[in-house]
Amino acid sequence: MHFADRLAAACRTRGNALCVGLDPRWEQLPLDFRESYDGASLESRAEAFEDFCIRVLNTVGGLVPIVKPQSAFFEACGPAGMAALKKVLAWARELGLVTILDNKRGDIASTAEAYAEAALGPESVWGSDSMTVNPYLGRDAVEPFLQCARRTEAGVFVLVRTSNKGAKLFQDLIAEGKPIYQHVGLEVARWASERLGDCGFGDVGAVVGATHPTELATLRQMLPEVIFLVPGYGAQGGASADIAAGFRADGLGAVVNSSRGITACFKPEETAWEDAIRAAAEAAIADLRTHTPMGNLG
Amino acid sequence: MHFADRLAAACRTRGNALCVGLDPRWEQLPLDFRESYDGASLESRAEAFEDFCIRVLNTVGGLVPIVKPQSAFFEACGPAGMAALKKVLAWARELGLVTILDNKRGDIASTAEAYAEAALGPESVWGSDSMTVNPYLGRDAVEPFLQCARRTEAGVFVLVRTSNKGAKLFQDLIAEGKPIYQHVGLEVARWASERLGDCGFGDVGAVVGATHPTELATLRQMLPEVIFLVPGYGAQGGASADIAAGFRADGLGAVVNSSRGITACFKPEETAWEDAIRAAAEAAIADLRTHTPMGNLG
Repeated sequence: MHFADRLAAACRTRGNALCVGLDPRWEQLPLDFRESYDGASLESRAEAFEDFCIRVLNTVGGLVPIVKPQSAFFEACGPAGMAALKKVLAWARELGLVTILDNKRGDIASTAEAYAEAALGPESVWGSDSMTVNPYLGRDAVEPFLQCARRTEAGVFVLVRTSNKGAKLFQDLIAEGKPIYQHVGLEVARWASERLGDCGFGDVGAVVGATHPTELATLRQMLPEVIFLVPGYGAQGGASADIAAGFRADGLGAVVNSSRGITACFKPEETAWEDAIRAAAEAAIADLRTHTPMGNLG
Repeated sequence: MHFADRLAAACRTRGNALCVGLDPRWEQLPLDFRESYDGASLESRAEAFEDFCIRVLNTVGGLVPIVKPQSAFFEACGPAGMAALKKVLAWARELGLVTILDNKRGDIASTAEAYAEAALGPESVWGSDSMTVNPYLGRDAVEPFLQCARRTEAGVFVLVRTSNKGAKLFQDLIAEGKPIYQHVGLEVARWASERLGDCGFGDVGAVVGATHPTELATLRQMLPEVIFLVPGYGAQGGASADIAAGFRADGLGAVVNSSRGITACFKPEETAWEDAIRAAAEAAIADLRTHTPMGNLG
């Protein structure tokens, strides 16, 4: 099934489009957890990350449609961390979750191809339904990702307007009357329109930070066929009302990510941390359903 | 020692600034090699990549000062591939080579920090002397890489003008009277000037493709304290005469990479492929020493 339709079906089934970001950091793991693993070796940290993420998946898997593991934290544990990442992605798929591997890759020709083939599709090395891609190198650097995504019914999210404060430095420079991020966005729209799903969205999405509500609203108007992956909700300061403009009226078109706001919502010494995670996910869903068109998902 | 001084010393010792890119592809390995490993599993390919790269390092280690493993091809072999990458980097260091991990990372805040800490310095997970970084996310996304590099006397190469044909799409858009890649380049120059080595160059370099000789010459004038990592020489079509403008008169200031031109210079059935690799490296060095200021390195 077309990636956008698979994503839409998952969102409709769960009645929301919340994505739980899996960014495991040793210092943020529950204390009882850090006592079970010593954390002295990379292998031990990798095991702890895997175990923690799988327990998070089991906790939120019935509530949300999407999860997004952040590759950097797994890579930081070396080869064992990458093995953990692979298992976390496989378990998410087992639970019927749509996965976004947040690894922000970008390179040229056969190198981009190697990254894409390693990440996309259930038979790939990492086994993700989609991945994030950096557009700086241009069209011929993004196309190998698209081609691979289309062979495997996967998706690609291209960085357009990132959620960090310094995003403006290059992304907001004005060329030919519009900021660079809009140039990138329009290119993404062209790619998306090449292959639309029944839901009206393409298999190429855009990363647009929740911390820039005006840009988010402008981009929704400019790019009606592009799904937005919206980071920055919660811990980074994006409020649900700011995100509302990122959706289509029926509640599709945006996936809202929360990482620390859910997986690091507890005090380290808290033993009922899974309950805290479940409650945080439920609260985020309720907040987003009330203040955004996500409430129309059913 | 400051990264730029370490790099300069290595270039002066070898009398050249050729970087051998390690981009192992299964189809390009020598035939006798592909027969020893079956290549059916990722683990077997990872072993073959490691063995091949170590033999390349032993062949060129006495000739060139720098090597650049391309992360994508190791990642494509899964966790075993990442273990191979780590061993290749360690062996290069053992041989006294300066290493550039070409992984083009870019992310925000603590995520960028995780990538940097995993890659930079001999005590890190991957153990490289330097890495490549994508600037699209802006200053606060590059700074964690710089901070980590400075703690470990490592270096960072920021993508400025890439070697692919489609690089123009966003990099050449004109804002405030100059192309985006120059905006990025000037930012890199500011970072470089914060901490110069005795050789007059900073610990933040720029990736500038050999396939764009005019841009290379302009950037050399604009960014006198920035070391250029110049991909695209040889197989991608960049000629030595085109690269000459990238150097300072004394032969420092540019590192010229050749990947396929050296490590895939032989026919698969050739058994004396190490001799072919040595000859290709020697020819590239002679060509560059004749047609660029590299000849002044001593």
